[in-house]
Amino acid sequence: MSESVSAVDFGEMTEVIQFLMELDKLKSVERRTRLIGNSRYENSAEHSWQLAVAAMSLAPYSGSEVNVTRVVQMALLHDVVEIDAGDVMVYDLAARDAIHAQEVAAADRIFALLPDALGKKFRALWDEYEAGETPDSRFANMLDRALPVIQNLHNQGQSWKENHIRLEQVISRNVAIEKEWPALWHYLKQHLEQAQQRGWLM
Amino acid sequence: MSESVSAVDFGEMTEVIQFLMELDKLKSVERRTRLIGNSRYENSAEHSWQLAVAAMSLAPYSGSEVNVTRVVQMALLHDVVEIDAGDVMVYDLAARDAIHAQEVAAADRIFALLPDALGKKFRALWDEYEAGETPDSRFANMLDRALPVIQNLHNQGQSWKENHIRLEQVISRNVAIEKEWPALWHYLKQHLEQAQQRGWLM
Repeated sequence: MSESVSAVDFGEMTEVIQFLMELDKLKSVERRTRLIGNSRYENSAEHSWQLAVAAMSLAPYSGSEVNVTRVVQMALLHDVVEIDAGDVMVYDLAARDAIHAQEVAAADRIFALLPDALGKKFRALWDEYEAGETPDSRFANMLDRALPVIQNLHNQGQSWKENHIRLEQVISRNVAIEKEWPALWHYLKQHLEQAQQRGWLM
Repeated sequence: MSESVSAVDFGEMTEVIQFLMELDKLKSVERRTRLIGNSRYENSAEHSWQLAVAAMSLAPYSGSEVNVTRVVQMALLHDVVEIDAGDVMVYDLAARDAIHAQEVAAADRIFALLPDALGKKFRALWDEYEAGETPDSRFANMLDRALPVIQNLHNQGQSWKENHIRLEQVISRNVAIEKEWPALWHYLKQHLEQAQQRGWLM
């Protein structure tokens, strides 16, 4: 960090402010999904915003007993480890396995910027999201899978085409959606099959 | 919208999905604040993410009786009207007055994309934020003012220098911070005076 950063004192909030300024870097982490209209790749900060809004918008329709507050907070924090580890596409299985240790190290570093109690609270939310075993974290993970699929369906399959993704990959890597929200999967599957017919997916 | 958008059916979630895809446009609304390091201007979607994380991170320190869930949701929605109305800098008073009617028209259009009950709920949150009269909306507005000040303090006064902003403007336009959170203002004011001495502010 530059000298000006370390020099900015906010009393007991100093570490929180430093954490928030460190998070600025997530705006520079590029994903494989472009904005609708294809102007550029989206970044993980704006994706996290859209995912959080999706959580508060879609939760009432899911029929799941999820705590929207916790799901929104998970959505806001789920990708901060990409500041150190970068974004890896959901279909790149080898890279995803390899990156897990880097993501844990990133969580160790980034949440430790915060005062102890707040850092532990946010880290626990991130750990819960990563494990994906509770209803809230399963819902957040499911939405994180569904959102780029929906974006691709509204953007002529852009990231599938650019990365030569097959229909079978999208289906096999997104079984969590079917398990978590069968009604949403019912529509997604229909649209995915249509997308393949249109040549958006191999 | 393109033909592919209107063709995507999600049953009772169709309007929610269309709303979420419409929100993609907020990623293209440019603000006057650059990323720390000056690579590019930030956009209103990633700003909304950072503001929401700031709300959940700083609320415990504010001593205010705010409902973090509602403040986070206001932060996530507060700028969606900029899809139609664009972003206007807080120091451009004439433009801000002129744009209010456009923002209301944008809220009418964008929240009406949603099913009635959800659209009314989100619109009520946006109206509350705009009015800034409740504890939650005052806190959200205060943070929306404080965040770009803090970003500028960590980025050599970038947007102040680019827009020839004077210390007196920053102080007079941000009295809401002093009123809402005197402890935060105490630190900001010190840093603002130092920033002027460094030539980051006129």
